[in-house]
Amino acid sequence: GKSYALNGYRKSCWYEEEIEEDLRWCFALNSILHTGHSQFQDIALLDTKPFGKALVIDGKLQSAETDEFIYHECLVHPALLHHPNPKTIFIMGGGEGSTARELLRHKAVEKVIMCDIDEEVVQFCKSHLVVNREAFSDPRLELVINDARAELEHREKQYDVIVGDLADPIEGGPCYKLYTKSFYELIVKPRLTPDGIFVTQAGPAGIFSHTEVFSCIYNTLRQVFKYVVPYSAHIPSYADTWGWVMASDKPFVLNADELDIRIKQRIKGENRYFDGKTFTSASTLSKAVRKSLFNETHIYTEGSAKFIYGYGSAGK
Amino acid sequence: GKSYALNGYRKSCWYEEEIEEDLRWCFALNSILHTGHSQFQDIALLDTKPFGKALVIDGKLQSAETDEFIYHECLVHPALLHHPNPKTIFIMGGGEGSTARELLRHKAVEKVIMCDIDEEVVQFCKSHLVVNREAFSDPRLELVINDARAELEHREKQYDVIVGDLADPIEGGPCYKLYTKSFYELIVKPRLTPDGIFVTQAGPAGIFSHTEVFSCIYNTLRQVFKYVVPYSAHIPSYADTWGWVMASDKPFVLNADELDIRIKQRIKGENRYFDGKTFTSASTLSKAVRKSLFNETHIYTEGSAKFIYGYGSAGK
Amino acid sequence: GKSYALNGYRKSCWYEEEIEEDLRWCFALNSILHTGHSQFQDIALLDTKPFGKALVIDGKLQSAETDEFIYHECLVHPALLHHPNPKTIFIMGGGEGSTARELLRHKAVEKVIMCDIDEEVVQFCKSHLVVNREAFSDPRLELVINDARAELEHREKQYDVIVGDLADPIEGGPCYKLYTKSFYELIVKPRLTPDGIFVTQAGPAGIFSHTEVFSCIYNTLRQVFKYVVPYSAHIPSYADTWGWVMASDKPFVLNADELDIRIKQRIKGENRYFDGKTFTSASTLSKAVRKSLFNETHIYTEGSAKFIYGYGSAGK
Amino acid sequence: GKSYALNGYRKSCWYEEEIEEDLRWCFALNSILHTGHSQFQDIALLDTKPFGKALVIDGKLQSAETDEFIYHECLVHPALLHHPNPKTIFIMGGGEGSTARELLRHKAVEKVIMCDIDEEVVQFCKSHLVVNREAFSDPRLELVINDARAELEHREKQYDVIVGDLADPIEGGPCYKLYTKSFYELIVKPRLTPDGIFVTQAGPAGIFSHTEVFSCIYNTLRQVFKYVVPYSAHIPSYADTWGWVMASDKPFVLNADELDIRIKQRIKGENRYFDGKTFTSASTLSKAVRKSLFNETHIYTEGSAKFIYGYGSAGK
Repeated sequence: GKSYALNGYRKSCWYEEEIEEDLRWCFALNSILHTGHSQFQDIALLDTKPFGKALVIDGKLQSAETDEFIYHECLVHPALLHHPNPKTIFIMGGGEGSTARELLRHKAVEKVIMCDIDEEVVQFCKSHLVVNREAFSDPRLELVINDARAELEHREKQYDVIVGDLADPIEGGPCYKLYTKSFYELIVKPRLTPDGIFVTQAGPAGIFSHTEVFSCIYNTLRQVFKYVVPYSAHIPSYADTWGWVMASDKPFVLNADELDIRIKQRIKGENRYFDGKTFTSASTLSKAVRKSLFNETHIYTEGSAKFIYGYGSAGK
Repeated sequence: GKSYALNGYRKSCWYEEEIEEDLRWCFALNSILHTGHSQFQDIALLDTKPFGKALVIDGKLQSAETDEFIYHECLVHPALLHHPNPKTIFIMGGGEGSTARELLRHKAVEKVIMCDIDEEVVQFCKSHLVVNREAFSDPRLELVINDARAELEHREKQYDVIVGDLADPIEGGPCYKLYTKSFYELIVKPRLTPDGIFVTQAGPAGIFSHTEVFSCIYNTLRQVFKYVVPYSAHIPSYADTWGWVMASDKPFVLNADELDIRIKQRIKGENRYFDGKTFTSASTLSKAVRKSLFNETHIYTEGSAKFIYGYGSAGK
Repeated sequence: GKSYALNGYRKSCWYEEEIEEDLRWCFALNSILHTGHSQFQDIALLDTKPFGKALVIDGKLQSAETDEFIYHECLVHPALLHHPNPKTIFIMGGGEGSTARELLRHKAVEKVIMCDIDEEVVQFCKSHLVVNREAFSDPRLELVINDARAELEHREKQYDVIVGDLADPIEGGPCYKLYTKSFYELIVKPRLTPDGIFVTQAGPAGIFSHTEVFSCIYNTLRQVFKYVVPYSAHIPSYADTWGWVMASDKPFVLNADELDIRIKQRIKGENRYFDGKTFTSASTLSKAVRKSLFNETHIYTEGSAKFIYGYGSAGK
Repeated sequence: GKSYALNGYRKSCWYEEEIEEDLRWCFALNSILHTGHSQFQDIALLDTKPFGKALVIDGKLQSAETDEFIYHECLVHPALLHHPNPKTIFIMGGGEGSTARELLRHKAVEKVIMCDIDEEVVQFCKSHLVVNREAFSDPRLELVINDARAELEHREKQYDVIVGDLADPIEGGPCYKLYTKSFYELIVKPRLTPDGIFVTQAGPAGIFSHTEVFSCIYNTLRQVFKYVVPYSAHIPSYADTWGWVMASDKPFVLNADELDIRIKQRIKGENRYFDGKTFTSASTLSKAVRKSLFNETHIYTEGSAKFIYGYGSAGK
């Protein structure tokens, strides 16, 4: 019985994310494609108007079709390009499949272990994220369902690159223990080959948000590795600049042109985001963030932590 | 890479309706079940948390699973119960099927013509609204795809009850012409049998909103029929009280007990909302609305109209 | 540096109320007039576009300028009109001042005690709600800052009418004890004169929402008083139908015409909402609500309670 | 009468910006500090929880207290630092006062003309933006209320730096004519001293949004000036990366260290965002944006334009 709208009406279905308690980011929706529940998490695949298909876990956007390439190219390529010959890779987390997809574009890569704790999330992504189908069926990929710490601990092999694609280090959160100094010292570093590189996503890295976890991850890693490179990039669907940290006991010596040459030689297909100059820009942090990282004193240990809004109640 | 929420997170998908430019009504969503486009309208079936499945046309909620029975029982039963023996019914609009469903519960009813202009909407509802499946396949129902005015005009038959289940009379809107004095005089009234009753949905009837169209529909009908009964009921999913007007040249004389007797005798199954006392309450308008209807002078004619927010730009 | 909008842009400041966890009601804002904090509550006076000035306590709309008259006329006039000669009144709560304002319109009223626990809220309303200024300075009004239960208990006087204008009875909430059978039996009833009437607001009374507290308040009162009348009215700014219950050991015998005569004789100024027919409609509940109240078995006692969304954590 | 919330309730007043039709950015509000209307625009000063005081014009956030320094340091310092001795500056727009504030920190600056068309906006900012009070009363600042194009045209003086702090170039918008090739060629360039530098804000510069106007402003300027430097920075309150373009007929030759030396020598107080390395990062665009700017062919002329969502209907 209600009225017909004659002229353009407004979008009426929305995905709303509480970035912080007082800040919301809302996408108009085309549809809710799939929803599921795992032992650990709620998961949904949404079709959003501004950012395409979006993977949402426990009410937090994980990655969006239109710009996940920024996150995943930044997570994978700097470490693999700086490594002289990256053959074996271990991913902690990464169940979405996009990290594996970017790794498998490197011709040198012979073996990728993807170790995610949540089988249902992995199955959900395998079924629904068409863009990662090829990666999921690549014979070089070995999928392991386990806690990454436990898995790394019991494996005796060493890897050329270990990639941390885990949730942020929140006290009481499932991943906190995978960001501590002792974990890096006693488990990660011994599992790296002599030229090995560790790289991890490192949370928001904006001018204000970098103090949440980015600066602490950086500071924790520089206690353990000789060379540590923080870098960042703005990801539109996250409404923030994101950070990664790369660490090794060998120096990172490539300039922009040398990176570009290696990209051409080593990577199948063309990067959409990452090249030599992009890395120059990404790894040259702005004054405020640079100072703040330099001055950071907090170190993640088993007995300390930092909070991000909305998390960690289990630990209270 | 983003954080896992450990504790209950907030609902993140919402349906949002602009009731007016400065007033919104928002339902958390489970899913977007179906969407479609017709020649005339956009249509969606949403699964909402507060009101179940909701039919939305052009960004306006048409009916919600949990409380559409209020609207449809109020539209159908007062007229059919007051009529001595309602055998033949003509529905203008009603493509959703719920009006037919309520009509077909009356044992006396032998024939229901449902005349809706939008075939795609009817097909959409036929396919997706399980609650109306039985009604759609009832042999007493004849479905006609046409403009209701044109259809009534060319048909020579008379009906015991004519039901208006159309969009509100908005200038420039598709249904305006189906609410005018001349339409009632020259087309509706001649198609009613001598005991015939016309009933129409009549838009919002709240203490403020009744001036939008309810009072004018009432006033237009009292120019044409001897006896005119306006009544209303609060429909939660509409966030408003809704109105209907029933009109005839025969008086409406039943009291609450007499209505209850007829309900028992004539209607299959049990009403959820409507009974004699409910009608006493619904047809006794509050002071403000009663006065305002009494004093209304506007009459819908081909050359006049009233506006509701968000509509009618085509007519400007 | 950002773009100028050339054409009408959308409203950009909103008040948003979570009616339930999955249901929101949002008003465009003109301004946030005043905010304050009391020992017990946060309080704000907003200037909203759809409903004028709105008083919000702890994120819940208490009353809105455009339609608070519905709530307050319904709370006050039925009881005072049914009473043969209401001279002394005790208000439990009511710090906003609107209940006193309506009471003081009755020529018979000689004394109104308003007993509210929150001095800051009372001061806030006294300062900012212009519409109640006259009432606040009426010499017949005596303002007491105290817990209404304690105040009634220690006073030995009896009142012609006691009005409950308190928050809903939520377990762990501040007002639960003011809705129990023992409170009504041992404190309220003994403080009423022989013809005395008790009336209380009784929470949402919509077709679904009446089971939250309305039916239980009704059922609790009918354990204590011989005559109990539940009634309800749709309040647009609440997005729901609201309920009140009136109780006495004397019967309520006035019909609509008799009520209208008393309104003329006894009340200064003109009611906007309430008259005899309005009460007929308001006190004739719809089928579903009537049945549900009839069948209600829950009684509020010191050892039992019912929950409403968002409240009561203190009692967990 | 409504319930008291016992536990933490959610934020209830929000500022909502439609960044695009399908994308919203919402800040919890503390208060609406001031609102006003000019001949041209609606203006409001909001106190937001996430970003402090926010200046909103016609429903679009102009600048927020917590991060406006990013925008204004980026707009002002690169051009003034690259100039050998910037004494006289002309600001097109800039009525907020922050651009003047940053300019006046340069010890060399002797004269700043701020030419804004909207006197009410300038007065509003002068009264309410405490942070710019000192700048507004600096004797070196001359405030002119006029169309910047007309003002520049009739003035015969030349300036060391001309700063464009105007709304984006939207067809039909008030500022479009201040971004065209002919304006740059015939009006801006002749008003620059031989070493003169022109710099302008250049709209959103994110990986997707840079095609709206950033790439075209860049391409238009490189038709007119020999050396053109585009650069960008993420501004959290804008939920995007923002762009600026600096242009001159003299080359920009300073490296990061040289910039840092000039900052120390020339600027009073300490920058919060901008230094040499920040500029290295800001002016090294990511692969996608770099390619897209390189390949841009559109030039703003009096007879062409590009659209941004929500604007320009006047020109249709």
